[in-house]
Amino acid sequence: MRTPEGEVAAVSESGEFQRSSSHFTDRITAGGAGGGGRDGQWPVEAGRYRLVVSRACPWASRALVVRRLLGLEEALSLAVTDPIQDERSWRFTLDPDDRDPVLGIRFLGEAYQAREPGYDGGISVPAIVDVPSGELVTNDYQRLTLDLSTEWGPLHRDGAPELYPEALRDEIDERMEGIYQDVNNGVYRAGFAGGQEAYDAAYARLFARLDQVSEHLAERRYLVGDTITEADVRLFTTLVRFDAVYHGHFKCNRNKLTEDRVLWAYARDLFQTPGFGDTVDFDHIKRHYYQVHQDINPTRIVPRGPDLRGWRTAHHRQELGGRPFGDGTPPPPPPTAEVIQPL
Amino acid sequence: MRTPEGEVAAVSESGEFQRSSSHFTDRITAGGAGGGGRDGQWPVEAGRYRLVVSRACPWASRALVVRRLLGLEEALSLAVTDPIQDERSWRFTLDPDDRDPVLGIRFLGEAYQAREPGYDGGISVPAIVDVPSGELVTNDYQRLTLDLSTEWGPLHRDGAPELYPEALRDEIDERMEGIYQDVNNGVYRAGFAGGQEAYDAAYARLFARLDQVSEHLAERRYLVGDTITEADVRLFTTLVRFDAVYHGHFKCNRNKLTEDRVLWAYARDLFQTPGFGDTVDFDHIKRHYYQVHQDINPTRIVPRGPDLRGWRTAHHRQELGGRPFGDGTPPPPPPTAEVIQPL
Repeated sequence: MRTPEGEVAAVSESGEFQRSSSHFTDRITAGGAGGGGRDGQWPVEAGRYRLVVSRACPWASRALVVRRLLGLEEALSLAVTDPIQDERSWRFTLDPDDRDPVLGIRFLGEAYQAREPGYDGGISVPAIVDVPSGELVTNDYQRLTLDLSTEWGPLHRDGAPELYPEALRDEIDERMEGIYQDVNNGVYRAGFAGGQEAYDAAYARLFARLDQVSEHLAERRYLVGDTITEADVRLFTTLVRFDAVYHGHFKCNRNKLTEDRVLWAYARDLFQTPGFGDTVDFDHIKRHYYQVHQDINPTRIVPRGPDLRGWRTAHHRQELGGRPFGDGTPPPPPPTAEVIQPL
Repeated sequence: MRTPEGEVAAVSESGEFQRSSSHFTDRITAGGAGGGGRDGQWPVEAGRYRLVVSRACPWASRALVVRRLLGLEEALSLAVTDPIQDERSWRFTLDPDDRDPVLGIRFLGEAYQAREPGYDGGISVPAIVDVPSGELVTNDYQRLTLDLSTEWGPLHRDGAPELYPEALRDEIDERMEGIYQDVNNGVYRAGFAGGQEAYDAAYARLFARLDQVSEHLAERRYLVGDTITEADVRLFTTLVRFDAVYHGHFKCNRNKLTEDRVLWAYARDLFQTPGFGDTVDFDHIKRHYYQVHQDINPTRIVPRGPDLRGWRTAHHRQELGGRPFGDGTPPPPPPTAEVIQPL
């Protein structure tokens, strides 16, 4: 099976959803000038690469947030796919002539083919494509955002926050790992479970972890330290989809996010922080999940709810202290071409 | 198509769900002694009839509540079906030998056949069966409970409330009609809509009506007058299923019931009133909807949520005044055989 984001995944004999790892794991690095990509290292270079995302996808949305926070909009251009894939997967049907204006392709899969002719695996976002060659560089969503923080430093905006500071990496990695297993990927394990038992197990782990995280955040503004880090970005992209999609569509329905006082305030705080909420397109999110995964929503009807206006309400998290951007500053508003219709 | 309760229904060309009316509309009446059923009138008689319900079904649950409130448990015995129908519809698989001990039948459909040999229409609950002949008397869920109030008077318990008092009938009927169209049946119109447009229309009507009802109940304890009436019973059986089923499964997800302060307190007030909550089996409700309607839940996985413990929390509606049972009294606890495992 494919996940809605296009990754290859499987359901085991016991009905458990298993996500396979990314296929293309080259890296764009500060020291990657040598091999021109052929040794798995590509050079950081302003204007050379194109980030391809779906705004529906939580994994791609990590890259959207990090790119905004670090001010990489000009250095790393953006292609946004239609939230609804067809049998050829992610497509550029939101662009004139159904074609990405920079890469000149109609389907993201063409960049995969350019990289590996005959490739017949999953086609997933986020993806970074080398514009001169048209080749896919990486679809490694776990590594991609960390490299934007640690390798793209010279291209960061003035005042960019440190999202993956060396002194806190062990703690960030540990938090992210538990949240990945039980929450980021946990909602998929619940939603795509092949049977009741696998679903029940995923549900139990999901809410146990959310309870733990909620307790952790009750007296702390952010997951690690007193500023925004990569860990917050990764938790955010799941939480922002929770009530709109995971609660109903994936049966993660012990309670809505809005019913957890701490997590709801935490998520709103981030949503209202420049670089987070301004990347979120609830229309893309809802249409994607409900229309693509016909195995669990055969009617393809998209629910009109929930009422999303609460995302803009006061969260009072600033009373906990914390300095969102540390010694840095918030990013300016997004480029006009990337502005999303507000709620 | 059949609804989960077994009624025949259709989806129109425009995708709108249309419930057909009940097929067997005989009545059991105080003056019905004459025709022995053959003129459409059957006599009220203690011990003669058997009420067949599914505890999953909101229409049948009206009869469960009214029977309890009026104290008809001894006069009108009860058969409870398995919440999951098979291809022969409602079945008595919860009973020893998979057979109703009083009627001696394995499927409710046998009583339909006894009444009309060769009948091939829908088989629905609630149903009342004449025990001596084994024949179905009525499956007219709209009329059935009214007759329990107005025709079965001599068999009511001492202190039974007046659920359909003559002086208030016009107002009760009017309230019930709007709630039936937009809420009781409205959730089905949303959940079984054949397309986005029909769903959107049902959703809009549902929440517009709920908003209106919520406003109406903000300063009044009950829908009509200052005591419980049939109108409250009918609204209750939909509200009690709202978060457990309709919110997710039927995509009625603007908000949960728990998010509407007034309706949530109103529903809890009724739930905690003897005769209401003690008829509710959330296990039957959830398994029925999620497992029977594979058109909208092909995995048949039953969500573990929502957390239902809130139903027992304080509602403070007594501060609005009102006398739940008027000059009457609450019913005693249900017969031992009918006690449901508490939440």
